[in-house]
Amino acid sequence: MGEDMTFAATVITLYPEMFPGPLGISLAGRALERGDWSIDAVQLRDFATDRHRTVDDTPAGGGAGMVLKPDVLAAALDSVDDGRPVLAMTPRGRPIDQARIRGLAAGPGVTILCGRFEGFDERIFEARPHIEQVSLGDIVLSGGEPAALAVLDACIRLLPGVMGAPLSGAEESFEDGLLEYPQYTRPQEWEGRTIPEVLRSGDHARIAAWRKSMAETDTRLRRPDLWERHSGARVQPASGAQRETKD
Amino acid sequence: MGEDMTFAATVITLYPEMFPGPLGISLAGRALERGDWSIDAVQLRDFATDRHRTVDDTPAGGGAGMVLKPDVLAAALDSVDDGRPVLAMTPRGRPIDQARIRGLAAGPGVTILCGRFEGFDERIFEARPHIEQVSLGDIVLSGGEPAALAVLDACIRLLPGVMGAPLSGAEESFEDGLLEYPQYTRPQEWEGRTIPEVLRSGDHARIAAWRKSMAETDTRLRRPDLWERHSGARVQPASGAQRETKD
Repeated sequence: MGEDMTFAATVITLYPEMFPGPLGISLAGRALERGDWSIDAVQLRDFATDRHRTVDDTPAGGGAGMVLKPDVLAAALDSVDDGRPVLAMTPRGRPIDQARIRGLAAGPGVTILCGRFEGFDERIFEARPHIEQVSLGDIVLSGGEPAALAVLDACIRLLPGVMGAPLSGAEESFEDGLLEYPQYTRPQEWEGRTIPEVLRSGDHARIAAWRKSMAETDTRLRRPDLWERHSGARVQPASGAQRETKD
Repeated sequence: MGEDMTFAATVITLYPEMFPGPLGISLAGRALERGDWSIDAVQLRDFATDRHRTVDDTPAGGGAGMVLKPDVLAAALDSVDDGRPVLAMTPRGRPIDQARIRGLAAGPGVTILCGRFEGFDERIFEARPHIEQVSLGDIVLSGGEPAALAVLDACIRLLPGVMGAPLSGAEESFEDGLLEYPQYTRPQEWEGRTIPEVLRSGDHARIAAWRKSMAETDTRLRRPDLWERHSGARVQPASGAQRETKD
C-alpha cells in the first residue's frame, strides 16, 4: 500500500492520551505500525483563547453539566479540516451503521469530535454543516472517546491488507441486512451438544441453505427492526427487485 | 462508599492489556483509583488445554475466519462466574440500551466475554443460557474489546459519586425515550449566530416547554424509531397512561 493510501484519523478530544490506546494493540496496532492508518489526537484545550484555557461553560437557560464552547470547537476543527468526513460523537446523532463505516474506510480518513459533559453548543452544527452527528447506539458515554475508538476500530479492520483473511468481511452481520448465521467449531461434541449435522455433511449447497435460513430466523427473532427493513426491501418493485432476479 | 459497593468488572479477552486503557484516565480513571469500580482482565488463552494454547478453530461447514472454542470459553467463564450478569459482545446480540446500562450499574458488576475472528461457538450460549448476547450497534468491530470499553464507560459514569454533577444523568438522551434537547453556551453571539432568545429569558416554564418541544421534534426527525416507541407508549391505555395523569 502506498503512503498516500494511509487512512488518516484525527481525533479532537480533551484526552488525547486515550489514543491510540487499544488501537495500538493487535490487528489495529500492527496496521498502525505498518502505516496503513495514522492517528493524530488533537487537544481541544489548545484552542481555548483565555488564560484559563476554558473549553466549556454553563448551559444557556440553566441545567446541570457544562457545554463545549462553539468558538473553541470551531477553532480546533478548522485547524485540521481538509475535506475528510467529520463526525461528532453524540447521543443526539444518527446511529452509525456498517454501511457508513464501509464508506469511511474507503475514503482518505476521518476527523472525529469527541463531546464531554452535556455535549456541544448546537451552533457548531449550524455553522459547520458538514459535521455528521453520529451515535454509537442508545447508550450514554462519559464522552465521545470510547465511541471514537469503536468507530476507528470498525474502519481499520476494513482497510486493505489489515484483516488476515480478506474474505471474512463479506459474510458477516449487517453486510446484507441480516445478522450472521451461528458458528460452530471443534470439538464435535461438547457437554453433550453436537455440531448440527448439516455442517458436517460436506454438502455445500445444503450448508449454504441452512446458514441463510438461520440468518433469516435469527434476524427475525432478535432484530425485528432489521428484518422489517430487509423483507420490506425485497418486496419493493424498484431496483432492488431487479437485482434479486439476477441470481 | 463502602468497599462492598465496588462495581466489579471482569473482561475475558485475548488482549487483557487493552484494559483499563482509556478507562484508566479521566472520570473512570479517578473512580478506579478511588475503588468505586475494579477491573479484572482475564486472558482467555490461559484456559486452553493443549500445548499450543489453542483458543479457536475453523468454522464447521467451512468459511473464512476462526471460531472461539466452546470448551475454552466455558472454562474461562466458569472460573469467574459468580452471579454477576454476563454479557457476550457480538453483532448477533440485542443492541444494548441505556435501560440495561442502568440495570448493570445498579448491580454488583458485570462479566464481559469479548469475541474475536468469526465469533463464538454457538453452543456456549445453549450451555450457559445466562449469557446475554449484546451488540453495541450495527457495526462490526475487530473484537469485543472496544465494545466492552464503551459498555463499562457507560456503567461507570452512573455509579454513585462518579459524575461531578449528580443531576446531569437525569435529563439526557434516552432517559425518557427521547433525545436530549440542543444545548447552547457563551458566547451569546458567535459567527453571527445567537443563543435562542427563550434560553436567555429567565422564564423557567418557557425554557422547559421549549426544551421539551425541541427534544420531541429532534427525536421525531432524527430517530423515527425512538419516536414511534415513545409516542406509541403514550397513547396506550395501560400503566403508562396512569403515570401520565399524575403530572
